[in-house]
Amino acid sequence: MGEESTMWNFEGDKHLNKASACTIRSFLTTVKENLNQNDDRPVIPLGHGDPSGFPSFRTAQVAEDAVVDAVRSAKFNSYSSSLGIINARRAIAEYLSHDHPYDISPEDVFVTVGARQAIDVLITVLARPGANILLPRPGYPLYEARAVFSHLEIRHFDLLPEKAWEVDLNGLETLADDRTVAMVLVNPGNPCGNVYTHEHLQKIAETAKKLGFLIISDEAYGYLAFGSTPFVPMARFGSIVPVFTIGSLSKRWMVPGWRIGWVLTSDPNGILQKHKITECIKSYIDISADPSTIIQGALPQILKKTPESFHSKTLNLLREAADMCHARLKKIPCITYPSRPQGSMFFMVRSSIETQEFLRA
Amino acid sequence: MGEESTMWNFEGDKHLNKASACTIRSFLTTVKENLNQNDDRPVIPLGHGDPSGFPSFRTAQVAEDAVVDAVRSAKFNSYSSSLGIINARRAIAEYLSHDHPYDISPEDVFVTVGARQAIDVLITVLARPGANILLPRPGYPLYEARAVFSHLEIRHFDLLPEKAWEVDLNGLETLADDRTVAMVLVNPGNPCGNVYTHEHLQKIAETAKKLGFLIISDEAYGYLAFGSTPFVPMARFGSIVPVFTIGSLSKRWMVPGWRIGWVLTSDPNGILQKHKITECIKSYIDISADPSTIIQGALPQILKKTPESFHSKTLNLLREAADMCHARLKKIPCITYPSRPQGSMFFMVRSSIETQEFLRA
Repeated sequence: MGEESTMWNFEGDKHLNKASACTIRSFLTTVKENLNQNDDRPVIPLGHGDPSGFPSFRTAQVAEDAVVDAVRSAKFNSYSSSLGIINARRAIAEYLSHDHPYDISPEDVFVTVGARQAIDVLITVLARPGANILLPRPGYPLYEARAVFSHLEIRHFDLLPEKAWEVDLNGLETLADDRTVAMVLVNPGNPCGNVYTHEHLQKIAETAKKLGFLIISDEAYGYLAFGSTPFVPMARFGSIVPVFTIGSLSKRWMVPGWRIGWVLTSDPNGILQKHKITECIKSYIDISADPSTIIQGALPQILKKTPESFHSKTLNLLREAADMCHARLKKIPCITYPSRPQGSMFFMVRSSIETQEFLRA
Repeated sequence: MGEESTMWNFEGDKHLNKASACTIRSFLTTVKENLNQNDDRPVIPLGHGDPSGFPSFRTAQVAEDAVVDAVRSAKFNSYSSSLGIINARRAIAEYLSHDHPYDISPEDVFVTVGARQAIDVLITVLARPGANILLPRPGYPLYEARAVFSHLEIRHFDLLPEKAWEVDLNGLETLADDRTVAMVLVNPGNPCGNVYTHEHLQKIAETAKKLGFLIISDEAYGYLAFGSTPFVPMARFGSIVPVFTIGSLSKRWMVPGWRIGWVLTSDPNGILQKHKITECIKSYIDISADPSTIIQGALPQILKKTPESFHSKTLNLLREAADMCHARLKKIPCITYPSRPQGSMFFMVRSSIETQEFLRA
């Protein structure tokens, strides 16, 4: 029974590699592999929104204490229920109710392993054969990756740089057909750093209703708006069109490694229930990984007790960082940009150096 | 634009419900819904291996301390790398090297969101169109659920009650064909409570090699063997056949809510690499949820510093519980069983009451 005599039946499926090729992780790997090893200048990581390694972006004391308390209590060592433990769901509902026209029910919230799993769940559930989804360009590439994986056709709509990265609503109408199940909106913007006005969000909601698709509003950077436009949750327009809002502790509390996110369903007209989407979400979550019970146990304390001063300090730091970038970037001749960021943690610029040259430099 | 005038394009996919219908969670929901609400006798949960709610099964002090230290250090708030942080992978490799013929490399280990995500990853990667997988009967139903979800054909082989739940090796040969990519083995057994001998495991490995498929050895209950047969990791036979071992903190440390598991690849002949399975795992993990960095940060301390007395106390408790069950069960006329458990946390019995009658009772 020599090794060479065995015919093995298994073989990797290239489709998986195609899906992951879309991701930032995959792109970063390529960039890193192309770095000149003999160049000892330090490399500044610009690849992802994770400032947690910098001392000035340490999370709130109350958040650390909450997790420590949860561990010491030994009450959160058991399996979670699929949709999340009820106290965590209630705390998220209360947190999101603050600037909402009506009280959000814990029933409308489920807890996920970060926003990443929220994206996995929503894309998987919506991906019927023949369906398509509208994704923003520029956007957050994990949506592309999960759509490719789930054989959900991708159609890109443009964000308009000269209009503060607003959605090209006319383009949306041209792209959509009766197989378009959803559009994705990222607000505050990743990677554009924009924040959408109440008026623009309402227009998007009305367009989506007219065309018959739901909205996935990725608010991973929710409340991180430091410019003149205040952050408005898309969930406010749930009575116009069903909205799934993706949220997370990762950015506002600067703990992306804790891996707690959520999905809020805003659908007062019960359309998602009627179309069996809610049921399918529960089914898929039943066969998926659960978020850590310990962090779920800490969530009520984190969401209720973090002082406003922590959040305003973060906004000041982000505003300062954006101003600093602006001051330095405008001195670099090959870099241009239509507007300064108003939110999230990104500064979207255009470089007149070709990527290939850049990688070789 | 009244609600009734909108034609919505999205619709739930029944395939997802079909997948989740296989799970223990789904079965438990049915059982609970059929309980007589007017009967106030207490309900004993027998549904899953999670003793963490009972004070005598509290996790090790050193494990709690390790998580608290990880939180307080603020060093584990950042995103993990896809395959897990290197110190966690190294600690798992060292832990698993203890009773292994050669040192395991951190490169052969990746960290998952509990054993659940490990199952998701392996089933997804192996599910090429037309392929089939061999699953044990009785077995752990999440494999069925993920296989249905991934359109991977399921073929069941029997575990033989009269032979201490050994695998029916002849049956295996009849079931397998050149599209059989893998078999799943659960050892110590869930739900049979059996522990396989070195000799039987070697025979399974040789059969798998002959038939050309790899082995997924689910060792979520690894080292929880309290009978006369010592626990032997399947990874020892990696030079005969490629083995994926699924492991976890959940059972041995009694913290299923912490959500840390792993996969060890044992393949000294490089067969999985050659067949692009390793590459596909990396691709799929790149687009999947990550395990919490905090618990990963605590892992080296947990795996290295938990005293042997903690583990022997657990084994004594489980043995005692099995003995107690045995003493009580043998007095119940409608319940029979071929053997007492030797490991894991289950007692497999046959009831001569039909399930339907039982649910109605």
